[in-house]
Amino acid sequence: MGVHSHWGLQFGRLAPGPRNLITDVPGVQVGHCTLDEGEARTGVTAVLPHSGNIFHQKVPAAVEVFNGFGKSVGLMQVTELGTLETPILLTNTFSVPEASAALITEALAANPEIGTTTGTVNPVVFECNDGPINDIRGRGLRSEHAEAALAAADADFSEGAVGAGRGMRSHGVKGGIGSASRRVAKYTLGVLVLSNHGQPEDLVAGGRPIGPGLAEQLGAPSEAVAEPEQGSIIIILATDAPVSDRQLRRLARRTAVGLGRTGSFMGHGSGEIALAFSTAQTIAHIPPQEPAQLRILGDEQLDPFFLAAAEATEEAVISSLLHAKADTTRNGEPVPSLADLWPSIPNI
Amino acid sequence: MGVHSHWGLQFGRLAPGPRNLITDVPGVQVGHCTLDEGEARTGVTAVLPHSGNIFHQKVPAAVEVFNGFGKSVGLMQVTELGTLETPILLTNTFSVPEASAALITEALAANPEIGTTTGTVNPVVFECNDGPINDIRGRGLRSEHAEAALAAADADFSEGAVGAGRGMRSHGVKGGIGSASRRVAKYTLGVLVLSNHGQPEDLVAGGRPIGPGLAEQLGAPSEAVAEPEQGSIIIILATDAPVSDRQLRRLARRTAVGLGRTGSFMGHGSGEIALAFSTAQTIAHIPPQEPAQLRILGDEQLDPFFLAAAEATEEAVISSLLHAKADTTRNGEPVPSLADLWPSIPNI
Amino acid sequence: MGVHSHWGLQFGRLAPGPRNLITDVPGVQVGHCTLDEGEARTGVTAVLPHSGNIFHQKVPAAVEVFNGFGKSVGLMQVTELGTLETPILLTNTFSVPEASAALITEALAANPEIGTTTGTVNPVVFECNDGPINDIRGRGLRSEHAEAALAAADADFSEGAVGAGRGMRSHGVKGGIGSASRRVAKYTLGVLVLSNHGQPEDLVAGGRPIGPGLAEQLGAPSEAVAEPEQGSIIIILATDAPVSDRQLRRLARRTAVGLGRTGSFMGHGSGEIALAFSTAQTIAHIPPQEPAQLRILGDEQLDPFFLAAAEATEEAVISSLLHAKADTTRNGEPVPSLADLWPSIPNI
Amino acid sequence: MGVHSHWGLQFGRLAPGPRNLITDVPGVQVGHCTLDEGEARTGVTAVLPHSGNIFHQKVPAAVEVFNGFGKSVGLMQVTELGTLETPILLTNTFSVPEASAALITEALAANPEIGTTTGTVNPVVFECNDGPINDIRGRGLRSEHAEAALAAADADFSEGAVGAGRGMRSHGVKGGIGSASRRVAKYTLGVLVLSNHGQPEDLVAGGRPIGPGLAEQLGAPSEAVAEPEQGSIIIILATDAPVSDRQLRRLARRTAVGLGRTGSFMGHGSGEIALAFSTAQTIAHIPPQEPAQLRILGDEQLDPFFLAAAEATEEAVISSLLHAKADTTRNGEPVPSLADLWPSIPNI
Repeated sequence: MGVHSHWGLQFGRLAPGPRNLITDVPGVQVGHCTLDEGEARTGVTAVLPHSGNIFHQKVPAAVEVFNGFGKSVGLMQVTELGTLETPILLTNTFSVPEASAALITEALAANPEIGTTTGTVNPVVFECNDGPINDIRGRGLRSEHAEAALAAADADFSEGAVGAGRGMRSHGVKGGIGSASRRVAKYTLGVLVLSNHGQPEDLVAGGRPIGPGLAEQLGAPSEAVAEPEQGSIIIILATDAPVSDRQLRRLARRTAVGLGRTGSFMGHGSGEIALAFSTAQTIAHIPPQEPAQLRILGDEQLDPFFLAAAEATEEAVISSLLHAKADTTRNGEPVPSLADLWPSIPNI
Repeated sequence: MGVHSHWGLQFGRLAPGPRNLITDVPGVQVGHCTLDEGEARTGVTAVLPHSGNIFHQKVPAAVEVFNGFGKSVGLMQVTELGTLETPILLTNTFSVPEASAALITEALAANPEIGTTTGTVNPVVFECNDGPINDIRGRGLRSEHAEAALAAADADFSEGAVGAGRGMRSHGVKGGIGSASRRVAKYTLGVLVLSNHGQPEDLVAGGRPIGPGLAEQLGAPSEAVAEPEQGSIIIILATDAPVSDRQLRRLARRTAVGLGRTGSFMGHGSGEIALAFSTAQTIAHIPPQEPAQLRILGDEQLDPFFLAAAEATEEAVISSLLHAKADTTRNGEPVPSLADLWPSIPNI
Repeated sequence: MGVHSHWGLQFGRLAPGPRNLITDVPGVQVGHCTLDEGEARTGVTAVLPHSGNIFHQKVPAAVEVFNGFGKSVGLMQVTELGTLETPILLTNTFSVPEASAALITEALAANPEIGTTTGTVNPVVFECNDGPINDIRGRGLRSEHAEAALAAADADFSEGAVGAGRGMRSHGVKGGIGSASRRVAKYTLGVLVLSNHGQPEDLVAGGRPIGPGLAEQLGAPSEAVAEPEQGSIIIILATDAPVSDRQLRRLARRTAVGLGRTGSFMGHGSGEIALAFSTAQTIAHIPPQEPAQLRILGDEQLDPFFLAAAEATEEAVISSLLHAKADTTRNGEPVPSLADLWPSIPNI
Repeated sequence: MGVHSHWGLQFGRLAPGPRNLITDVPGVQVGHCTLDEGEARTGVTAVLPHSGNIFHQKVPAAVEVFNGFGKSVGLMQVTELGTLETPILLTNTFSVPEASAALITEALAANPEIGTTTGTVNPVVFECNDGPINDIRGRGLRSEHAEAALAAADADFSEGAVGAGRGMRSHGVKGGIGSASRRVAKYTLGVLVLSNHGQPEDLVAGGRPIGPGLAEQLGAPSEAVAEPEQGSIIIILATDAPVSDRQLRRLARRTAVGLGRTGSFMGHGSGEIALAFSTAQTIAHIPPQEPAQLRILGDEQLDPFFLAAAEATEEAVISSLLHAKADTTRNGEPVPSLADLWPSIPNI
């Protein structure tokens, strides 16, 4: 639900949708499955472009890789064909195989023709490394957890340390799932992030450079680049505006603007990837004989959507931090909540 | 071992290495695990750039996607960082998760610091759809089979319907694993393909358009584009020449020349992807304090390597067909062997 | 007009259009201006997607770079916006500035609002190095020659050593402009090439490996890679099929298949670039308030177009050679015509 | 010379070099030629990687296109070969042909073998549209002006409305040339920008959101996206760190972080492109027989350089504004100087 108007923060000049969530885009649903068994503190988050059969009613989609230090799957085919044909799953790095398997299982169950009379299916899974909080080597997450996240999909969903966000850290505090949306004329654009990146000193919230104060509060090292990042941030953008896959890539690229506004410099080890899709129209798996009629906005009309992509991403990142509860790493080091620290950060 | 000098065919003008296999590149090893249990007729093939710890001694690598209709994993990071840090596995489309899991398992076992004091690991897996012969929906292949392929890696290996090639079809006949190599001055360049693509009518072998005769022999439909492809071809290129990741991408791109010479037109549904790596020098996971010294050929010196990439790919594709034994689909349709048909194809 | 059915050669299985030229695509026009003044033996060729105001009625377009060793201009914006907004000019490498200037001049004259109330214009110019025949350092070609080529545009045009093809060489013989077309259901796809690439030994025509005989005839050196290429080949593809810019890039990529069939291995120094556009519908410079309605074929319907792209390119390359008359370099070395040599090439 | 420590602004946490200019990178030189004849208010800026023969001693280079709405030339070959072989010129959009011609002229004069015994040369020119101030349709700039900029190259140079910056506007105020540098261990990284982009309302300087106050001061419209951008920003990054072309592309990508920090959202019509080069070692035009020895930093060591790229870009953009003097458009509308407005902008 973003953090617009909370905390005295403002993120740009466009109005958010009613929930200030990616699910303000009609039909989009998000579901979590959070795993909390011993040192298995991880999870899965599912993003559904619509509630129908996505394999048969694909949505236009595009990918932009800002820093390809990551293990996401399915992006090559999205780029080649300009469509998404499964829900999107987010999870920890070593659970990508289980999440992929769950998407295959679901697609096979819903579509008996896959692998017999038609081709195969392209699962799309993103990941971040939740190592210090989750026992990532333990690989506790199973395919069933991914199926549970898919089954839990709804227009209402939680932010913070839930689902794939369970074990994530950002800017020295607890990170995870964040979301926000913007209205552009009669259309809506929404963003969901999985945040697991960034140095404390760099954090900017609503234009305020709170990083130095945060670093002081955390007793974080003050060297230029304190410690190498091993994280990532995943950005999912949805819109009901009628745009092509090429235009979606242009939208995806503008999420980096919002990310930059929160202080990221896209560290070497931080996989940073955006996927954008449009729900305005679907692409049939079996194309009609005659060319399909697609409605497409002019590129000259995209500027407000670019702005919306930047603003919603900026707010979603900060929302992921302000909604995440304090935790400890497996070694017992505290991972504070930004919301808890907020009152005592100097010079906010 | 290619098919150079067999069958009266010639593939270009460069000399092959002693085995005429990708393993003529010193240190490169290939292993298969073939699964043949009821309708599970599939497998895994492993390609190892060297026999050491690949995570710690990465090799320069690059990827070229000719047609991105495919579900390979790990390519984004190879492109970003220019290195390969695991063996390469090839398998069927729906077994990618199991193969990925096996690479993660192996890397975790060999490197206790992954996921604790260092980051994660990027498994690289390629796939083709072996549907008509293998019960791909049955997903019979398990992680252990992938581990067995890794364990079987050796400089000597079989071609044809083995490993990942077990269930593949190409140009209407049995396809699978093929390999060839070429010498360029003091260096060697080798190629391994997993072939599962192409129409009968289009096949060209050693410059001879045998496709029309083959199509007649097979009673294949003679329409312009008989049936949509749902296959793929994966091309792995290895060399001991000291080349950079950018240059490796240039090499990878020339494999398309060899592929084109065999009659492929890169059909819509045929994922066609090449990965190239160099064994001339390794990149340490933990970089030395001072800049590494790398030997790099000039781009002006690459022409013979480009030719070698084209020739070795062309021969490897034909070798994959001539080494594959006849089979039947699960429906009982014959999938002939090109070698068996050879004497009776008109006008060879 | 291609070379289909002449010379006993066949290029694939699809039927050509009535002219067997790129101008079989309705509305497409081609014009030449050939410069033959002393050692200035060069020229310009113009390709017009339609005869209207291209700046206001842009056409969907895409670019594929096979080997980026070249100095073409305008490709970045074509890729970003998916449209072509000027005619395409082809010329020699050092005359790109003059050709660009001519396109700017023409666009400014036709559109007084450019640079005042609207933005600028993106000229698209391709080039090859016609050095040995043309005094390329002399830079004899002027902006007026480019304007003359634009003015000469027509559905009928010559192939061979005309326009930009005046000074080009390919495979050791005279090269230049070649064109061919194919019918796909109710649509047409046409290709025009500017050929200036390739080794004698590699030439394949209609599936026949005539290169070795040609090399013998030419007394060409027989080493593996005789001499480094400093040429290029430019491939322009037009179609009236309703396809998107992403799909046009997929079509452009298949021209490499046709190129490969003629024996090219994409040498280091040979810039190889394809641009594809569709005339099925235009994109207005000033977009309508509401989304435009675009007709788009399904990707599953593209296979015959892929085949057409390969076949038309293959034939256009050979046509460029068979239409070019014999010449001499500035040093007096003969540059024979393939048509003249044809009867005496061994083993055709 | 950046604006570090002036105006009470701070840009990140790394120390600048002695000049706080791109020319802090040893050997790099910058030259301007400003044209001010009637309504021809434009110019050329040259950036030289070193003072030797760049064609023979190329420097590793890479390009990143953030928004490809632009008419730059030469980028394709930089990407293919990973090298820069001429100085870089920046100018107005319609003077790209004249600037290209000047680079060709200079290269031909210095290298008699170009176009005879060796290949051609790849001029690299960037542009922005300086329309409202300059009579861009008049095309007053000639090849000689570009040659004058090359001849004027020096380690000391001016910022603001000089050279290519003469007619540029940014964020509603006068823009143009800006530069800054950062020290990273024993290396230096410098940035030069040509700024001609952005809305008043969006401007952020040193983390302070001065845009809203600036827009108020300018009486700028307050709609979400006031008017479409027709500008661009060009970013040139130089370093003496020993990095590969792939790593240079990673550096180039981080300039977007700095750009984002100043408030840009990469509007549709704003071509935004970065080129990065390294002076640590040169690549010989004629490669040695044996592989060259190149020193290359590990990717894990790049984080401080990424930070430096972001910080130097951020400061260079603001420096371009604070150094540019007030002007008027050709229609007589004022184009104020940010430095003049500074004291009266509310809430700075």
